[in-house]
Amino acid sequence: MKVYLDNNATTIVDPQVFAEMEPYFVQRYGNPNSLHIFASDTHPGIKAGMERIYAGINSPREDSVIITSCATESNNWVLKSIYFDQILTGKKNHIIVSEVEHPSVIATAKFIESMGCKVTYLPINSEGLIEAQSVEENITDKTALVSVMWANNETGAIFPVEEIGAICKKHNVPFHTDAVQAIGKIPVDVQSFNVDYLTFSAHKFHGPKGVGALYMKKGKELMPLLHGGSQMGGYRSGTLNVPGIVGMGKAMEQAIDALDYEMSEIRKMRDAFEDELLKIEDTFVVTPREKRTPNTILISFRGIEGESMLWDLSRAGIGASTGSACASEDLEANSVMEAIGAAEDLAHTAIRFSLSRYTTQDELDYTLKVVNAAVIRLRGISSSYAYAPAGHESGLDAHHH
Amino acid sequence: MKVYLDNNATTIVDPQVFAEMEPYFVQRYGNPNSLHIFASDTHPGIKAGMERIYAGINSPREDSVIITSCATESNNWVLKSIYFDQILTGKKNHIIVSEVEHPSVIATAKFIESMGCKVTYLPINSEGLIEAQSVEENITDKTALVSVMWANNETGAIFPVEEIGAICKKHNVPFHTDAVQAIGKIPVDVQSFNVDYLTFSAHKFHGPKGVGALYMKKGKELMPLLHGGSQMGGYRSGTLNVPGIVGMGKAMEQAIDALDYEMSEIRKMRDAFEDELLKIEDTFVVTPREKRTPNTILISFRGIEGESMLWDLSRAGIGASTGSACASEDLEANSVMEAIGAAEDLAHTAIRFSLSRYTTQDELDYTLKVVNAAVIRLRGISSSYAYAPAGHESGLDAHHH
Repeated sequence: MKVYLDNNATTIVDPQVFAEMEPYFVQRYGNPNSLHIFASDTHPGIKAGMERIYAGINSPREDSVIITSCATESNNWVLKSIYFDQILTGKKNHIIVSEVEHPSVIATAKFIESMGCKVTYLPINSEGLIEAQSVEENITDKTALVSVMWANNETGAIFPVEEIGAICKKHNVPFHTDAVQAIGKIPVDVQSFNVDYLTFSAHKFHGPKGVGALYMKKGKELMPLLHGGSQMGGYRSGTLNVPGIVGMGKAMEQAIDALDYEMSEIRKMRDAFEDELLKIEDTFVVTPREKRTPNTILISFRGIEGESMLWDLSRAGIGASTGSACASEDLEANSVMEAIGAAEDLAHTAIRFSLSRYTTQDELDYTLKVVNAAVIRLRGISSSYAYAPAGHESGLDAHHH
Repeated sequence: MKVYLDNNATTIVDPQVFAEMEPYFVQRYGNPNSLHIFASDTHPGIKAGMERIYAGINSPREDSVIITSCATESNNWVLKSIYFDQILTGKKNHIIVSEVEHPSVIATAKFIESMGCKVTYLPINSEGLIEAQSVEENITDKTALVSVMWANNETGAIFPVEEIGAICKKHNVPFHTDAVQAIGKIPVDVQSFNVDYLTFSAHKFHGPKGVGALYMKKGKELMPLLHGGSQMGGYRSGTLNVPGIVGMGKAMEQAIDALDYEMSEIRKMRDAFEDELLKIEDTFVVTPREKRTPNTILISFRGIEGESMLWDLSRAGIGASTGSACASEDLEANSVMEAIGAAEDLAHTAIRFSLSRYTTQDELDYTLKVVNAAVIRLRGISSSYAYAPAGHESGLDAHHH
């Protein structure tokens, strides 16, 4: 059996999404910006794709949704354009991000910090959550941007973007949210709260890799990160990725259609699976499940190196994660576990299971059996577990089972 | 009949290229950076793709070929990283580009110029060529970069990158060339001359849109433009575009295989087609054909607005261009024609035909008939042609037929 439970890293491309993309490789291959029939062949697909994307986040037509190559590009774009426009010019000197942003925000923040920008890294609390009040406390009249993700990729924790947006509005500071882990999992409506910039990426919701987007509110348009031939209204140059736009559009439409299923059925399956996992002795979950996206579990198995568990799972055909795939070549401790101050031994024991609408009950039942067997095998050979029995100080006692 | 003669704007994806990409959407969809079987499913495709790309430009393994989303990203990356690393820090204060670079170089140069960098825009001569000596004349001990394209997108003019590379080496200045229009048309070997950075893009050689690359010589690695999860050795973050890499690799392999055909057969077809076009009265070609890529013709028809000709061609099923598709929404005068100082009336009359290995003799015969009919029709209704008979001062007399 093959079981894919790493949907926060990437997702299977939906066959219907692929079917819509397919004609745009070998048949409708023109450059949309040319002036001939091969170009106009591509226009209906682009139009439909863009309409579906606008509709998916309920963006007014007067706002801009700009197609990029990925969320990493969108996030770099926001921070670096603010740097060029506001920091380098001396108008402002400061930005605020959370300490558990995706690496594409954290690394970019550190880069512009090295170039003279002050950066506040907001801490998460013991539940893995950001407190909106911490934005209020750190904002100054020199703050050029607040960037806080909507849902965390590792824990699924949903951050209070509505409250943070209201605080930013009060202080007249632009607000960016990385919504990569929110689209298709919880309702995303850019008109329902104050947000100026919003990042998303197709491959996180059953669209293709290599295409993302940035929403920009009217009047808050950024200078480009990629200058050139003035495609996308001049905000993002480069030949349009036609199949990518078509695919992201279809994937967005399907994500919206499947949202109820995700929020009810996937949530139920996730909760039941989590209940069973927590029956295993010495397991820990950080964020209360009602404060998480419906598909995500980050769970620690004391005494078991995350990577060891991953290999046991992978040998049994199961794909899971120790956290962000974006940094998993490093084999570092889970960054959320570190941020909440978990003991060093626990920070290396977290495993992330992330479901999707493709996940079946059979797959979860099978996974549970494999996990149970792996726990017995790995704890049997774990020297750290032998010396650290249940009840050992973990920094996670509130969620200790 | 449908005839595609706009291959410098973009190309059809080769069906074999698409066939290699196809399994990486719905079947082998894992994130390559994850630690499980769904990730390792993607590794052979990435490995083969990268090997083909390295081989295609004869890059040593110790140098870096970094996958980007397009040539526009690669070009922005080079200029902006040089800006951050060399200009903003005060180490250097100057870059050199040609005045007929692709918009992604020109617009980026203008951007960093607005941020305090001095920029020299090298002129082209009456044949549409850059003279290497002009680099020598403009280089200073404060020059941080020379960026001159290998082949021009509008005329196909091949620039003296070997001589320019040697001048840069002598002065110890990094040399970047945008080789987007060279790959698959002329031999590109990064070991055959001095080059530090080289840009290319899959969709210009029958690969997919949305994927490009930047070659960087060992020891000359740039700081990233996109910071994040440290994919691609930390030089370009973002989830790997697996089908894009697979497709670019296969397209590169095929481009190399087809290079002899391009340089002999396509060149012959292009030359014969051009001979026939030049039999039409009052037509002008800028760059001598032996100094051009084998597939490109930029030809002016006095008295005929380029856009009018395009519409006549498009109605007959033929796709051509007035110049760069990247800027064709603007309906501006052809930039090369402007740069060589062509009379205003001629600058608007240029039509670019760009062939590929998919072009057939039948298609060219048909196109010739359509062009001949369009010339008669459009000159018949052209007031400017009525008042400007043959022999009128054009600035292009050397190539007047």
